Amino acid sequence: MNFIENGSVTSPIGFKGAGICGSVKPSNTTKRDIALISSDVICNTAAVFTKNLVKSSAIIVTQRNIENGKAQAVIVNSGNANTCNADGEEKAERMCELAAQALNIDKEDVIVASTGVIGQPLPIEPFEKSVPELGKIMSENGGTDVAEAIMTTDTVKKETAVTVEIGGKTVTIGAVAKGSGMIHINMGTMLSFVTTDAAISSDMLKAALTEAVEKSYNMVSVDGDTSTNDTLAILANGMAGNEEITSRNEDYRIFTDALMAICKSMAKKLAADGEGATKLIVCSVSGAKTAADAKRVAKSVICSSLVKAAMFGADANWGRVLCAIGYSGCDVDVTLVDVSFRSKAGDIKVCENGAGIDFSEELAKKILLENEIEIIVGLNDGDGCAEAYGCDLTYDYVKINGDYRT
Amino acid sequence: MNFIENGSVTSPIGFKGAGICGSVKPSNTTKRDIALISSDVICNTAAVFTKNLVKSSAIIVTQRNIENGKAQAVIVNSGNANTCNADGEEKAERMCELAAQALNIDKEDVIVASTGVIGQPLPIEPFEKSVPELGKIMSENGGTDVAEAIMTTDTVKKETAVTVEIGGKTVTIGAVAKGSGMIHINMGTMLSFVTTDAAISSDMLKAALTEAVEKSYNMVSVDGDTSTNDTLAILANGMAGNEEITSRNEDYRIFTDALMAICKSMAKKLAADGEGATKLIVCSVSGAKTAADAKRVAKSVICSSLVKAAMFGADANWGRVLCAIGYSGCDVDVTLVDVSFRSKAGDIKVCENGAGIDFSEELAKKILLENEIEIIVGLNDGDGCAEAYGCDLTYDYVKINGDYRT
Repeated sequence: MNFIENGSVTSPIGFKGAGICGSVKPSNTTKRDIALISSDVICNTAAVFTKNLVKSSAIIVTQRNIENGKAQAVIVNSGNANTCNADGEEKAERMCELAAQALNIDKEDVIVASTGVIGQPLPIEPFEKSVPELGKIMSENGGTDVAEAIMTTDTVKKETAVTVEIGGKTVTIGAVAKGSGMIHINMGTMLSFVTTDAAISSDMLKAALTEAVEKSYNMVSVDGDTSTNDTLAILANGMAGNEEITSRNEDYRIFTDALMAICKSMAKKLAADGEGATKLIVCSVSGAKTAADAKRVAKSVICSSLVKAAMFGADANWGRVLCAIGYSGCDVDVTLVDVSFRSKAGDIKVCENGAGIDFSEELAKKILLENEIEIIVGLNDGDGCAEAYGCDLTYDYVKINGDYRT
Repeated sequence: MNFIENGSVTSPIGFKGAGICGSVKPSNTTKRDIALISSDVICNTAAVFTKNLVKSSAIIVTQRNIENGKAQAVIVNSGNANTCNADGEEKAERMCELAAQALNIDKEDVIVASTGVIGQPLPIEPFEKSVPELGKIMSENGGTDVAEAIMTTDTVKKETAVTVEIGGKTVTIGAVAKGSGMIHINMGTMLSFVTTDAAISSDMLKAALTEAVEKSYNMVSVDGDTSTNDTLAILANGMAGNEEITSRNEDYRIFTDALMAICKSMAKKLAADGEGATKLIVCSVSGAKTAADAKRVAKSVICSSLVKAAMFGADANWGRVLCAIGYSGCDVDVTLVDVSFRSKAGDIKVCENGAGIDFSEELAKKILLENEIEIIVGLNDGDGCAEAYGCDLTYDYVKINGDYRT
């Protein structure tokens, strides 16, 4: 498996994309905010959505459109979430219609997604004007414009692609994502679209996506708020020419591992670019009684506001890590717990058997001043392992969210 | 029921208190940090503690000492949590011993509590030196020094007292609390001690405390972190002379309502003084299918980092309130939900039937610029009601917690 330099959602064979500034938010007159992704041929598709009861109208329309396991395009906008609006479904339907017309496909084969402020009516005029334009500029190099168009408070574009050999054929998987705030476990992504030229049935695609999500997007938290618009969709057009994957065979395993690698890479990008974040925090837990316990502990540490603030301050306050382990809800023997911090500046053990040990505050500071920190928790009570991804809590998180609507 | 002006934990008959600067944290040379509370006679007692598996040694010793439902004094310190220390229990025992010697009572009748940084050995010398001193300065006016001594990042002392008629006698209940960060539901308090001269059995005291806590301290969240040291203890010495409350009779009801009022008042003080907070946020939920549902929804709103940041920015971003309702885990019909904001500057409805309505942004801003904001959620689907207490999320929360240990 190889990561492709400058890989994007249009790296797989037969995929095109484009992004345009449609001024969905009237104050935005420069940044791309409407995007299209399309496949030359119809795709098998699978998707997962937010667990929030309050759902964007876009999700309701998408769920209807992909019920048959098929899709050929994605239309997406930033600047407005199209959530909690009386006429939201109608607008989302119209977005699909416009995309279908521009691409000369069926409107029922379009996935629609929106991200931005909740509860403000979505203006449809920007789409009426811009989507026909988008249809004309669709390109195999358009992936990166899609990545820009779906950004909200994101500070960097999030895209990647890998190639992998499946049955003697080179299969490519590409991905784009946005997400910075309102990010939490299940689903911690806001929006992500994955494309592949692999031939794989809708059922196996759903299985692979579920497996991959469980260890990637579902292990990210920025601020504990579960968004209303989270959508992760994958489209597989089969153009790589491999024998279609229709069971959990070896090809399925290779495909799923590659998909997992893509999703983990994107999950880390989301966490590292969490609103206001200055560092990526990875919490690795081992020695739990079960894998489920390990996940709960890792998530609890990553989600602790106090741990996050300590990481921002490069303060080796391991007591807060223990505190978060203690309220995780898992049956942990506190007297067995070890905690270390690691970064490229080195690693340092700070707690052994649930109690503090002497350590160099100077070295700890040096380690924690890096921008990728690993908190290593050893529960020493079994074989369960897990990793969760988060970020520090900073002044800028508060600044960004203190007045988001204006 | 009347709140007493300048009421404190030593307002009830027969209680004394004192606080002293013992330099538990060597850098502290001015603030009181060790305190004693005592009763002239043995008390019935009840207490509730943190649900965190990681517990202060003080809690373990206290649980042992009050197993018989009796206590006569409290020794408490700030500056060090005495948690995750190999010799913690020994130190907590010694604190009880010193208090008992100073007060000439049994060491098994002493409640011990600590608050401060986790995982640093507790220095015992400050207690050896200061507790005998404390014994000499115990006074009926000492309550307010106790309130100071238990503060950590608190910016104000938290104390109050009420009187109530029970069976023709005037009964007084006093309380002191500390808590600012690491505050969450179950128990959102860190430390609180309640004293009363009521005559009430240990069993009924436990019942009354459980009832009161459920609607007060258990409905507060500052930052979602459950502390390792949370302790709420009540001591009843019977000196008011009322007939002892031994069943759930009318006297029990009057007593419990008064205790509830005290606890709610203290819960609001904790929330309003949340680390870095500039405002108290009360979320009132009505119309839930059940009272339990109402509680979950109210807590979910109060705990949302995005709602908290919006309140800091006085931004009427009600979409985030709906979002938090949606992920609360309750079966809510989103299309029935109404949301209003209220403060002493007025009130304004911003969402009706799950969708935005036109409202004056100017008035909304004016309302949200006040320092006590109520978020009123109508679920319109039943009779369940609840209130939860929180605060806004500010730059200062991050500042305070970025480098707490130094």
